[in-house]
Amino acid sequence: MEKIGFIGLGLMGKPMSLNLVKAGYSLVVHSRSQGPVDELVAAGAVAARTPKEVAEESDIVITVLPDSPDVEKVVLGENGLVAGFSAGDLFIDMSTIEPKVTLEIHSALSEIGVDAIDAPVSGGDIGAQQGILSIMVGASESAFSRALPLFEVMGKNIVRIGEAGAGQTTKACNQILVAQTIQGVAEAMTLAKKCGIDLTKVRNALLGGFAQSRILEVHGQKIIDRNFEPGFKTELHRKDLNIVLQTARALGVSLPGTALVAENMNALIAQGLGKKDNSALALLCEQLSNI
Amino acid sequence: MEKIGFIGLGLMGKPMSLNLVKAGYSLVVHSRSQGPVDELVAAGAVAARTPKEVAEESDIVITVLPDSPDVEKVVLGENGLVAGFSAGDLFIDMSTIEPKVTLEIHSALSEIGVDAIDAPVSGGDIGAQQGILSIMVGASESAFSRALPLFEVMGKNIVRIGEAGAGQTTKACNQILVAQTIQGVAEAMTLAKKCGIDLTKVRNALLGGFAQSRILEVHGQKIIDRNFEPGFKTELHRKDLNIVLQTARALGVSLPGTALVAENMNALIAQGLGKKDNSALALLCEQLSNI
Repeated sequence: MEKIGFIGLGLMGKPMSLNLVKAGYSLVVHSRSQGPVDELVAAGAVAARTPKEVAEESDIVITVLPDSPDVEKVVLGENGLVAGFSAGDLFIDMSTIEPKVTLEIHSALSEIGVDAIDAPVSGGDIGAQQGILSIMVGASESAFSRALPLFEVMGKNIVRIGEAGAGQTTKACNQILVAQTIQGVAEAMTLAKKCGIDLTKVRNALLGGFAQSRILEVHGQKIIDRNFEPGFKTELHRKDLNIVLQTARALGVSLPGTALVAENMNALIAQGLGKKDNSALALLCEQLSNI
Repeated sequence: MEKIGFIGLGLMGKPMSLNLVKAGYSLVVHSRSQGPVDELVAAGAVAARTPKEVAEESDIVITVLPDSPDVEKVVLGENGLVAGFSAGDLFIDMSTIEPKVTLEIHSALSEIGVDAIDAPVSGGDIGAQQGILSIMVGASESAFSRALPLFEVMGKNIVRIGEAGAGQTTKACNQILVAQTIQGVAEAMTLAKKCGIDLTKVRNALLGGFAQSRILEVHGQKIIDRNFEPGFKTELHRKDLNIVLQTARALGVSLPGTALVAENMNALIAQGLGKKDNSALALLCEQLSNI
């Protein structure tokens, strides 16, 4: 069994790495905060002090980090993975970052004989805990085959979209769609609320027709319950939409609906609501309409 | 068994009325075009020359018409239903119209002892043919009980949301959500296309996660197939969004995402694409991005 390094033990990374330990893998872990590291060590993992050390001790290294600069630093920075990797090792980035940065890292690692995979996920912390994440993979076929047993521990709907970068592009598409669907649910619920009709009945009626979506199911219920605890923080979704809009701009693609939702998220963040769930878009709709 | 009048035998009304005939109801029908009337007569229905005549011959009258003025004319206009109804009759409007007009009609009919129900639907022509429409009902409890056996022939997810008008408000919520979800699918597919990745794999990956929706399933596939035949015409969806935005404006509700999609539909109509399916929003995204 290959030895696995795991860097980034946050809301997503911690349950994902715990599932690997439970599946019998030997893990070497590293994270900014000590708490999750201690939890993983208690579960049977070994702690390493730097990404370099993680790479030295592992055959395959997985990262689950917040943003593009974090991944860049962990891989290419001082005491980074690149200093510890040996030819034949495999790097799997499951963070959501810019496709451009993914390709830069891919190219830097291929020079030292290390294959790189981009495999961002969807499904939230609950999907991570239950090992049922949706995983969107950009990889060569051989690298994908090697990583697949690990993906099958962490996820359920695992699709190899294409070569390096294709996973990040697909995640960008995912965030476009999720953003606009939540905005739609938020506007629908706001109109229903203003009309004084029963929001639960509206949600149920809409779930039975063409408007059905997992987001209406989950975020619709959160809005009804006035429960805006994450879930997925608005500031993280806005970060993802920045990636989307930067990528689109570089490619010459216009995304007016996505830009509008990103602006609404900017407003929520400006009001100190960035740590609330992205369903807090409903709060902004209510505020705009003086409800 | 009560005698049923049915007015409006278009893309939706024809299969809905045929299902009632098949279920054993006696139908009196009326429509602008002769073709569908002949089809219904061949199936066992009786044709009437005016809405007034339909009301005279029926206990319950159902309308499935394109827009608010059509319903207003059929009910309150010359030789309208109101001239043929008797006290104790029931009126069921399954069109998508302004909640304000619904309430006007409700009030005019209640003066002559006729109960009125608003029961717009979702699920498209396929849902109408298969008798699996989602039906959103605004009605008194007694009127709802009387109409329920008919709804059960035409639909599957039948929810009484509240009193008169609540059905139309819920349909407005439905159209808000459907519009923005299609715009999201269109933008996601446009970005994926520009990146040159496999759209079918993107759709499959997204269907397995939080971005799952019936619209990604159906409209995503239509966009992949470059099949923009309706389905639901852009010009009819734009009409519904006009109702939504007028209603919202009257209530003092701001719906920025909905307004953006309505404008995109205006552009499609300006370009002569109003009779294409609403998934043609993808064509506009491509045009904006010069793809």
